[in-house]
Amino acid sequence: MSKKIAVILSGCGVYDGAEIHEATLTMLAISQQGGEYSIFAPNVNQAHVVNHLTGEEMNESRNVLVESARIARGNINALSDFDANDFDALVFPGGFGAAKNLSTFAFNGVNLVVNGEVEKAIKDMLAANKPIGALCISPVILAKLIPGIELTIGQDEGTAQAVNELGGKHVQTTHGQVIIDTEHKVVTTPCYMLDANISQIADGANNVVKSVLGMLN
Amino acid sequence: MSKKIAVILSGCGVYDGAEIHEATLTMLAISQQGGEYSIFAPNVNQAHVVNHLTGEEMNESRNVLVESARIARGNINALSDFDANDFDALVFPGGFGAAKNLSTFAFNGVNLVVNGEVEKAIKDMLAANKPIGALCISPVILAKLIPGIELTIGQDEGTAQAVNELGGKHVQTTHGQVIIDTEHKVVTTPCYMLDANISQIADGANNVVKSVLGMLN
Repeated sequence: MSKKIAVILSGCGVYDGAEIHEATLTMLAISQQGGEYSIFAPNVNQAHVVNHLTGEEMNESRNVLVESARIARGNINALSDFDANDFDALVFPGGFGAAKNLSTFAFNGVNLVVNGEVEKAIKDMLAANKPIGALCISPVILAKLIPGIELTIGQDEGTAQAVNELGGKHVQTTHGQVIIDTEHKVVTTPCYMLDANISQIADGANNVVKSVLGMLN
Repeated sequence: MSKKIAVILSGCGVYDGAEIHEATLTMLAISQQGGEYSIFAPNVNQAHVVNHLTGEEMNESRNVLVESARIARGNINALSDFDANDFDALVFPGGFGAAKNLSTFAFNGVNLVVNGEVEKAIKDMLAANKPIGALCISPVILAKLIPGIELTIGQDEGTAQAVNELGGKHVQTTHGQVIIDTEHKVVTTPCYMLDANISQIADGANNVVKSVLGMLN
């Protein structure tokens, strides 16, 4: 039986949603390593919409589930339908969506609020002793929810300090490296939190998925 | 010197723009095979906007260059700035955007009109004897512009017939296979024109890029 991994997206585009390369290459890594993935996203409006050409905010409203469906080619479910019993592991790609739509870290720093469905998904997996992977900025969500977690977001000092203030233990890493918290079964890697190229993102996604699958054997 | 490949996108999402996996995995293939890519898209409105969760048209307007910038992480240029002298090769990922925004094949079939900047980019590369790669549905654009071209869009009978009516020669293929037209230096592969998984898309993108780069040695 191939292992079933749920992937939670936060929109479609690095500045207001899920980082597209990290999301796509997580799905590729799961497929190439013999797993199966199912994609979820919360059915909520994005915090805002950013013009990715200019970096400026647009006077528009977009829905996280609807935009995430672009990456999923329509094959996606509302996060409210997620059941931890159905999956062996959970992975969060990065992108500002993790810090704007799945949580409010981009706006509130260490006072972040985590989306209730995201929090439930994480806590249900933890309670079931099932592994969680997180790329780029999304580990800050885990720092908020899991006291004492050891994780990486790369080398950004402000974010690393926030992780520590939240009660986590930040470990500095470079391209493709993963930090494995064996107690909580959490695997993290920096991806585009570093100034990375797309091959380095593939390395990070591959290594997270390999470590997550390794915990299932 | 690493080879420079221009990648032309058509939006961000399979049903109204560039297919995200094909675009991302083309960029990954270029990077992993030692090339460099630059991304372009025409600065025009999308033909329409499709809700990728429901498949229904949305009452919105989006710009092809602005939405393509999501896949490019903002690192993109207007196709009007493309100069064939600056590149060794050109690649078109697929997605309905190739048949809705770069051309009108999805609406007009064999009476398709090709965007003027797309036509110029292709004809300038042909005139310079430089290779072109095309994935999924985008080869139909080449069938319109290059009399006698040999190409594949996979196994879809209607599209294959259209290619032949346009004066091309369609060759049936399966996952990851490429058709190489050595006379015109054009490489094509079906990708999501077949019922494919994401690993098969990576195979197709890798094989197109490998064949394109092989023509440059």
